[in-house]
Amino acid sequence: MQFTVNAIGTVHNERRTVEDDHWLKYPSEIRLNDDLPAECLDGIDAYSHIEIVYLFHKALRTRPVIGAEHPRENPSWPKVGIYAQRKKARPNFIGCTIATLLRREGISIFVERLDAINGTPVLDIKPVLREFLPYGALRQPPWADEIMRNYW
Amino acid sequence: MQFTVNAIGTVHNERRTVEDDHWLKYPSEIRLNDDLPAECLDGIDAYSHIEIVYLFHKALRTRPVIGAEHPRENPSWPKVGIYAQRKKARPNFIGCTIATLLRREGISIFVERLDAINGTPVLDIKPVLREFLPYGALRQPPWADEIMRNYW
Repeated sequence: MQFTVNAIGTVHNERRTVEDDHWLKYPSEIRLNDDLPAECLDGIDAYSHIEIVYLFHKALRTRPVIGAEHPRENPSWPKVGIYAQRKKARPNFIGCTIATLLRREGISIFVERLDAINGTPVLDIKPVLREFLPYGALRQPPWADEIMRNYW
Repeated sequence: MQFTVNAIGTVHNERRTVEDDHWLKYPSEIRLNDDLPAECLDGIDAYSHIEIVYLFHKALRTRPVIGAEHPRENPSWPKVGIYAQRKKARPNFIGCTIATLLRREGISIFVERLDAINGTPVLDIKPVLREFLPYGALRQPPWADEIMRNYW
């Protein structure tokens, strides 16, 4: 099954090139398309966190490796498949990140802890509800702890 | 900006019709497409939770209301815009849910707490990392607590 998605807005920040770490330095404005009514954001400021669904647009021309490989080509980490990692070059090139909502202004929202570079097309914005957080204890492999060490 | 996405797999469970609540009764198998190598799931069992990105395929023919309206048409809840709620009929029709991973078998994973009906096309699977959970205290409006009361 195929489906065509359309950007509903764009990320604006100071990160112009693709890099892996230190995202906290780059707060973002997400400005929705001009043809969307501002009311589509009404009520969003009642939430502390929002989930941003976006396209890894700089990776669109790459061909994702979907079989098992070392994350970030680091041979000290185990070979894992594409669905055991969150890398950009993946089928459908969709990213999802829970960001902290700073404020809303008209047709824009301002967020931090969003790991998307300037110009990133946004596909959706969802409020984060407590009842959608992981249920029960969270478990992840040691290499995931390591890869996230300097991420934010 | 437009982009065409392709299903990478399908949800299989016993929920055949669109309903809002009681999702815990319906554990799911997500079976990836036959043309994907099983190694794309290698390493996934090191995680307790995974995020499923999917299409609200039964809503595709509707025209989303994006301006402010009462969630579930309940007048006792405030009018909010589409980006202050998680309803299905939304631009791009993308759903994202953090599910509990039960096990992997070959080219399938078995999950619970996934709110997607039988036949739902899956666009992506991402491992849930602790460092991607909401940072700081979570805040949501009272109507969101109410709408989630019988959800799981």
